[in-house]
Amino acid sequence: MAGWSGEATVTEDEEAIHRLVETWMEATKRGDTETVLSLIADDAVFMTAGGEPFGKAEFRALASKQAEGVHYEATGDIVELKVLGDWAFLRNHLTVTVVSGGGEPLFKRSGYTLSILRKEPDGRWLLARDANLMSLA
Amino acid sequence: MAGWSGEATVTEDEEAIHRLVETWMEATKRGDTETVLSLIADDAVFMTAGGEPFGKAEFRALASKQAEGVHYEATGDIVELKVLGDWAFLRNHLTVTVVSGGGEPLFKRSGYTLSILRKEPDGRWLLARDANLMSLA
Repeated sequence: MAGWSGEATVTEDEEAIHRLVETWMEATKRGDTETVLSLIADDAVFMTAGGEPFGKAEFRALASKQAEGVHYEATGDIVELKVLGDWAFLRNHLTVTVVSGGGEPLFKRSGYTLSILRKEPDGRWLLARDANLMSLA
Repeated sequence: MAGWSGEATVTEDEEAIHRLVETWMEATKRGDTETVLSLIADDAVFMTAGGEPFGKAEFRALASKQAEGVHYEATGDIVELKVLGDWAFLRNHLTVTVVSGGGEPLFKRSGYTLSILRKEPDGRWLLARDANLMSLA
């Protein structure tokens, strides 16, 4: 039976995952790729519509390429978060606007993600699997 | 520590999930919507690109509508399966060809899914969350 301390642990994990999502969004806005990468497990797999899954190295390459000359306005709403011991799944609704160096909105993508997170032995939660269903808004 | 019996339990769960996927594919091929629905949790959420998430009732309505006059050829490869106690996640690569009543292939969709499965109190595994990244091939 889950007692008070067990419930408190779950809440700490949920708070840690909420912080991870906030940190990710804020780092994305300021183009801080290294902070985003620090939230991604080394064996992470990213899945998008119409392409092959890719890993952290390709995520890094894509993020570096995209970071030149534009920045991102990102908002997100966590729709569902379920902690399963040292793993969790998360459904998020995201809106990302790509903005030119001159401040002009270039295009907007929005939609849902389904992500799997894993708690590392050192207690950090990291993104482990991500299915990104966003499309042009 | 996981002993022999613990490992055997995990294998049984993995086998049960492999059977669920096979049953789903075979039922889809023969247009047996009721069998497919029996593999879906009542609180399931389906996520697709460019649309709002929907539940089991809408899945039923879509399946009934699609079943008229066509049938499906479906193949799948489980890319990853990870059992997390009474939950599991599954990455699958699917190819679905829609075939006319006259046997003519109409169109083909392929791609990846990320699914969350849950073990019910009666021991059955059911699909609980599904992110479908398939696109026209």
